Amino acid sequence: EEVARLLALKAKLGGDVAPASQKFTLKTPKGTRDYGPQQMTLRQGVLDKIVQVFKRHGGEAIDTPVFELKEVLTGKYGEDSKLIYDLKDQGGEILSMRYDLTVPLARYLAMNKISSIKRYHIAKVYRRDNPAMTRGRYREFYQCDFDIAGTYDPMLADAECVKIVSEILDTLEIGDYVIKLNHRQLLDGMFEACGVPAESFRAICSAVDKLDKSPWADVRKEMVTEKGLDEATADRIGEYVRLSGGTELVEQLLADPKLKAVPNAVKGLEGMQLLLKYCSIFGLDKRVRFDLSLARGLDYYTGVIYEGVLKAEPGSRSSPAKSAQQNGEPAEQATVGSVAGGGRYDNLVGMFDPRGKAVPCVGVSIGVERIFSVLEARFAASKVKLRTNDVEAYVASAHKGLHEQRLRVLNQLWDAGIKAEHSYKLNPKLLAQLQHCEEHQIPLVVVLGDAELAQGLVKLREVTTRQETSVKLEDLPAEIKRRQQA
Amino acid sequence: EEVARLLALKAKLGGDVAPASQKFTLKTPKGTRDYGPQQMTLRQGVLDKIVQVFKRHGGEAIDTPVFELKEVLTGKYGEDSKLIYDLKDQGGEILSMRYDLTVPLARYLAMNKISSIKRYHIAKVYRRDNPAMTRGRYREFYQCDFDIAGTYDPMLADAECVKIVSEILDTLEIGDYVIKLNHRQLLDGMFEACGVPAESFRAICSAVDKLDKSPWADVRKEMVTEKGLDEATADRIGEYVRLSGGTELVEQLLADPKLKAVPNAVKGLEGMQLLLKYCSIFGLDKRVRFDLSLARGLDYYTGVIYEGVLKAEPGSRSSPAKSAQQNGEPAEQATVGSVAGGGRYDNLVGMFDPRGKAVPCVGVSIGVERIFSVLEARFAASKVKLRTNDVEAYVASAHKGLHEQRLRVLNQLWDAGIKAEHSYKLNPKLLAQLQHCEEHQIPLVVVLGDAELAQGLVKLREVTTRQETSVKLEDLPAEIKRRQQA
Repeated sequence: EEVARLLALKAKLGGDVAPASQKFTLKTPKGTRDYGPQQMTLRQGVLDKIVQVFKRHGGEAIDTPVFELKEVLTGKYGEDSKLIYDLKDQGGEILSMRYDLTVPLARYLAMNKISSIKRYHIAKVYRRDNPAMTRGRYREFYQCDFDIAGTYDPMLADAECVKIVSEILDTLEIGDYVIKLNHRQLLDGMFEACGVPAESFRAICSAVDKLDKSPWADVRKEMVTEKGLDEATADRIGEYVRLSGGTELVEQLLADPKLKAVPNAVKGLEGMQLLLKYCSIFGLDKRVRFDLSLARGLDYYTGVIYEGVLKAEPGSRSSPAKSAQQNGEPAEQATVGSVAGGGRYDNLVGMFDPRGKAVPCVGVSIGVERIFSVLEARFAASKVKLRTNDVEAYVASAHKGLHEQRLRVLNQLWDAGIKAEHSYKLNPKLLAQLQHCEEHQIPLVVVLGDAELAQGLVKLREVTTRQETSVKLEDLPAEIKRRQQA
Repeated sequence: EEVARLLALKAKLGGDVAPASQKFTLKTPKGTRDYGPQQMTLRQGVLDKIVQVFKRHGGEAIDTPVFELKEVLTGKYGEDSKLIYDLKDQGGEILSMRYDLTVPLARYLAMNKISSIKRYHIAKVYRRDNPAMTRGRYREFYQCDFDIAGTYDPMLADAECVKIVSEILDTLEIGDYVIKLNHRQLLDGMFEACGVPAESFRAICSAVDKLDKSPWADVRKEMVTEKGLDEATADRIGEYVRLSGGTELVEQLLADPKLKAVPNAVKGLEGMQLLLKYCSIFGLDKRVRFDLSLARGLDYYTGVIYEGVLKAEPGSRSSPAKSAQQNGEPAEQATVGSVAGGGRYDNLVGMFDPRGKAVPCVGVSIGVERIFSVLEARFAASKVKLRTNDVEAYVASAHKGLHEQRLRVLNQLWDAGIKAEHSYKLNPKLLAQLQHCEEHQIPLVVVLGDAELAQGLVKLREVTTRQETSVKLEDLPAEIKRRQQA
């Protein structure tokens, strides 16, 4: 603490003096990482596929600053607020790093008085959480959000968000998955029916949310010990949260005497019925599952909530699967973690509007870090090296003294739009140049030599086959383009 | 101050309570802005073109965290260090927001013991500077950097960076430009020749850097009054910094008795000679200008420095052009601002390596915010509305009661990879649906009606021509694809 204060003081006083030899550990901040060319190639491939799905559904892109006035974030995240990164007060506004892309969207809509938009936003968010980097949990991580804002008829936009999750998980081919569905109104109605006091709904909801990581016994204990619920009430909740199924479960619950008496529960169940119907039209019967244990951590949801969860591959290590632990039943197929989540939040924009004007919203966030880590592990196992450059032709010298000729040929290729590079050494060895091409998976080499150049010719060599052809210098760009298309 | 402290305390104590009605101004932090769909479309277009050039030169992408350990940034930026954003000490590491992408690259190379790479990095950086947002100067802004790291022969990589700047400015078509070139060794040698004490080189260099915004009289005053230079020395510097030209100027200075006696000056001039030769091979004779007033603000440069500057369009308002003010000559063509800059920094990586192992680097940073603001102004003037979505077909109801059929048709289109959307209202008016398509520049509308559906048909309407054709439902995806290709 004292050290930190002294360091800060020192930095303030004399930030300009370079340390003679650096004494700190050379690392990235806790919970963050660099992306090298291999990871970036993988990441860009994933993001491109996700954007393609977002655009298929008419999404427009927006971007917002990485930090917001602290007040913008205050009171939006419930128990998670303690994980927000704050900026130092350096004289001026009090700022915090964005915790998600949803609250900034709500601020954007209220500030610009936008009452309908279908937007996607791909950017990093920041959470001072306990990182578990091998499992894809970071303090700085990408979110890929798609949200539909506007006053519309029930469940049409909500069902499309579920469809988007399934299209993205299908296109990424990261394995079998299930999209769990639930409804905040049903959860509230269920809590009411079980006897939870209204002021404890959010706290109990936040406890239920932990069921994907902890067994019921632990969650029950949190409800009773930390959140002051009486044991009988907790047990009644325990009966409900073990239920999951399809439309037949909705009908069963609509007939449940305790729930039937609570308007919120009935509304939630009717909403779920409609959502399941639309999901069925979208061909998602086998992908979605109504699951009463799904709660989602954030405070701002008001309606449908959903989560896309990867199923464990057979034989792989998996996190504790609550269905098995909780029901004492054999685990059907354990789940390895959430890769997408979202829901409806109808009141968030109104919290920013001076007159409280609401803009109903529903959206989904793709957990790409988790997806990256699954794909990275798969690539590491397969030992495939991704190509990280797009170079079409490498310009090489066969002997000394040709660097200016190389520059001339390169200039000709670049001006023709061809991706080309060379060695930045005056007289590189031919073997070193050819090895560079093999290592970097560059398909073609243009080999320059005095004898050929005197005739206006160069050699064009295919790296994999090692076949060489003589090409007229003036025809070189066209010939390279021809080969690329073949 | 006190208010800020109380607010911070309040946030710490009770960050979870939503304000009944928000009392703060709804805004983004000072010096930052949102990008709406129009701006994003423009921005993405610019970034795509820049990446294309980076890839044409064999660049690989990397990414680093938005913040670094504070010590990583300390002592790298000279006088600019005071503009670094710090994060609040919330218990843990002391962090600062990145100020550029160059120091993070050096940290990345040292940390991973990488001795050669050609990488690009496109990301936001943060400076607590005085924003001038209409001129494209923000506190949060994008940098697009391309750097070549490795131990190579002189000026080959440096000249390629200059070529990259010219390719990017050409492809963006933002107007006429000049790339100013200078050399830090020559500047140091020139300072030495003029009688500046060695310990003042960086401070005087930083004063010279202001010549692009301030007239010589102000810069001279800073040198004499703030930086303690004697007047005669300042006047000698004044003689040199008004010089600009080509190879003939290099030769003239190589013959200058004062400079000839200083080894640093001779080395800098010889480097400049080689650079100009390579630039000439790259066809850049008319684009580059050796300019002794170019200094660049950052401390870490050790060799070539360059800056791409847009020339003012005839009749447009321009910033004070120093050449005119300084020389008393008629302004040839005033410049409107720097849009690219960079140089060689051979010692930065070594500052991070425990054994001081150096990795020589040269790079360039494209000032895309300035470019965005030029293009935004141009679009605003032309009243062209950019298309912000890629929707190929809108699915509309001709009358009530068709929403489930709409969902079925949409599902068919999405599954065929077609970009499609509809109204999220159960029974939207046909006119409203057609207007949506006109406003959003969607080319095709699929109109559903009971009569046609009974025969397995839908109407396909071209929005601009209003031509309608009947299409079999099963042929719809193929027909839309056919129209898109036509």
